[in-house]
Amino acid sequence: MNVAAERLQAWISRVFLKTGMADEHAQTIAGALVWANLRGIDTHGVVRVPRYVEWVRSGELNTRPAMRARSDSSACVLLDADRAAGPVAMSHAASLAVEKARGAGIGMCLVRMTTHTAALGYYTQRIAHLGMAAIAFAASGPNMAYHGARAAGVSTAPLALAVPGEDGPIALDMASGVVSLGKLAQARRSGEALPPDVALDAQGKPTTDARVARLPLPLGGAKGAGLALLIECMTSLIVGNPLLAEVLEGTPAGRKHSQNGAVIAVDIERFIELPRFRGEATRLARALKALPPQPGMEILLPGERGHRVAAQRRVDGIPLPAPVEEELRALARAMGVEDI
Amino acid sequence: MNVAAERLQAWISRVFLKTGMADEHAQTIAGALVWANLRGIDTHGVVRVPRYVEWVRSGELNTRPAMRARSDSSACVLLDADRAAGPVAMSHAASLAVEKARGAGIGMCLVRMTTHTAALGYYTQRIAHLGMAAIAFAASGPNMAYHGARAAGVSTAPLALAVPGEDGPIALDMASGVVSLGKLAQARRSGEALPPDVALDAQGKPTTDARVARLPLPLGGAKGAGLALLIECMTSLIVGNPLLAEVLEGTPAGRKHSQNGAVIAVDIERFIELPRFRGEATRLARALKALPPQPGMEILLPGERGHRVAAQRRVDGIPLPAPVEEELRALARAMGVEDI
Repeated sequence: MNVAAERLQAWISRVFLKTGMADEHAQTIAGALVWANLRGIDTHGVVRVPRYVEWVRSGELNTRPAMRARSDSSACVLLDADRAAGPVAMSHAASLAVEKARGAGIGMCLVRMTTHTAALGYYTQRIAHLGMAAIAFAASGPNMAYHGARAAGVSTAPLALAVPGEDGPIALDMASGVVSLGKLAQARRSGEALPPDVALDAQGKPTTDARVARLPLPLGGAKGAGLALLIECMTSLIVGNPLLAEVLEGTPAGRKHSQNGAVIAVDIERFIELPRFRGEATRLARALKALPPQPGMEILLPGERGHRVAAQRRVDGIPLPAPVEEELRALARAMGVEDI
Repeated sequence: MNVAAERLQAWISRVFLKTGMADEHAQTIAGALVWANLRGIDTHGVVRVPRYVEWVRSGELNTRPAMRARSDSSACVLLDADRAAGPVAMSHAASLAVEKARGAGIGMCLVRMTTHTAALGYYTQRIAHLGMAAIAFAASGPNMAYHGARAAGVSTAPLALAVPGEDGPIALDMASGVVSLGKLAQARRSGEALPPDVALDAQGKPTTDARVARLPLPLGGAKGAGLALLIECMTSLIVGNPLLAEVLEGTPAGRKHSQNGAVIAVDIERFIELPRFRGEATRLARALKALPPQPGMEILLPGERGHRVAAQRRVDGIPLPAPVEEELRALARAMGVEDI
């Protein structure tokens, strides 16, 4: 089934509304998930809805969070999210970072105790659309091998960067693993072989057999593992909600889903007029695209493929694979939401 | 030859002093280079001295820079470095970022028009030693293939992150390439084969033959290329000193060596007491080190190997390979500096 983004978003909003959350929050979550689908990041789209609803039921996602933003400095905010859904907390954090950046040139909001942040690039691209540069991190529990270890030690913690461009933001959203858990699951279903040095099996041995692959390996070995570890330090440890150690030590807190995040905004206009910045970004893009390509490859900017897919899917609608569609219909039915 | 760090630093300082720079600047450059040697990052150590001196002669490195720090906000500074040596500009930038962070919670200093920044981790680790978290970038001219291209499009732009730890900073300093230019050169000398997907030859074809390898490939393909591109955007384009486009377009400015950088400091104590942060960092380190290791591997924290090498080299001295030693002695002699 192909479905128009607006229709999908309205439907998913109604599902979240049924969990008892405010309409604004339901809209925010549905908006972040459908944005990912629009851009072709289907692993971070509406496929996540059933899990989000599970977290509501288990109490790990708070539908009526008492979020508290605390700031005792001109450029920093700590947002205690009280288990608010990731998109609710991170969208608010992005706004707070931008507000601080307007006053101080740079603004940072650290987010404590939220849930799955959805596609991190959603927040950095929003900031770039406002004419600012953005950096964001997200930390979660261990799901990736630490370099040199046979077991999960860190998460595939993403780093996102974005700046304004001529035709949409120049925007990178990269996980610290060689391959995502979503892609491992996809390979498991399709039965295709994995490249070497991508994943470990349950015993911690490198494998190319997708059926037994369990843990992604960190990008560049020590680099990706180090990046993931530093992201935990710069978010979870600073906000006093450690995620990795709790799970690795097997504490009760470690059995609950939780994430922390950080959003930094930089007011480019403090340094250079925005049209000049955009002009230079366009000039750089043109120079890169003029390079001789590898056979059969196209030279793309970070985020460009997503902009294109979004343009296409705004016309064609978002394709929902049958199993996802069925799961969502069943969930909606069970929650008393009319069919899409 | 093995030489004590202090003696090497004093000698290298005298070489830089002869170029006409202030004693303080000569000390700063020598200090940054010898720090890299101490930690085993020999590619960013005193091996760079002859090149730095060449840049003085060509006018690309200004020995008497009129650095100007401009700030019209509580958290940001633009440091126009006037072609000051990288370590001079970046050390000053780190101090300015820390000063702003003390007042505003987070502080950023963008650096315009400096030269080779030396080991970027030097600045972030200094900030971590002051009890703050740090992020730094550096941008330089194209020396790495852009993803999908058969030619250099971006630089192996490094990203460095550091936080205070119990036994020295937890500190990552990663280039955005699969392999450094230094390692390519080393493989060329030793004749060893390269792994696949590491480098391109002069025609832009992938090669495992170190003798013809010219360009490193970006880490993780689109990820490393995107990171390098975003670092150029977030430094060079914001400070109005574009590096990549000038070279790619073959302009006169593109023929001059130049770098730009950024240093961000975050005052951890605004969010959490430092002893508690350090305690959590230690706890996390312990949990990671307790993971089952891969056969023959040791589980290390980012920066840990460097801390160890430094402890050893403080006792044994810094090993200088004969060709490096000879080149430095000849340079010192030619500049009228007494032998080490």
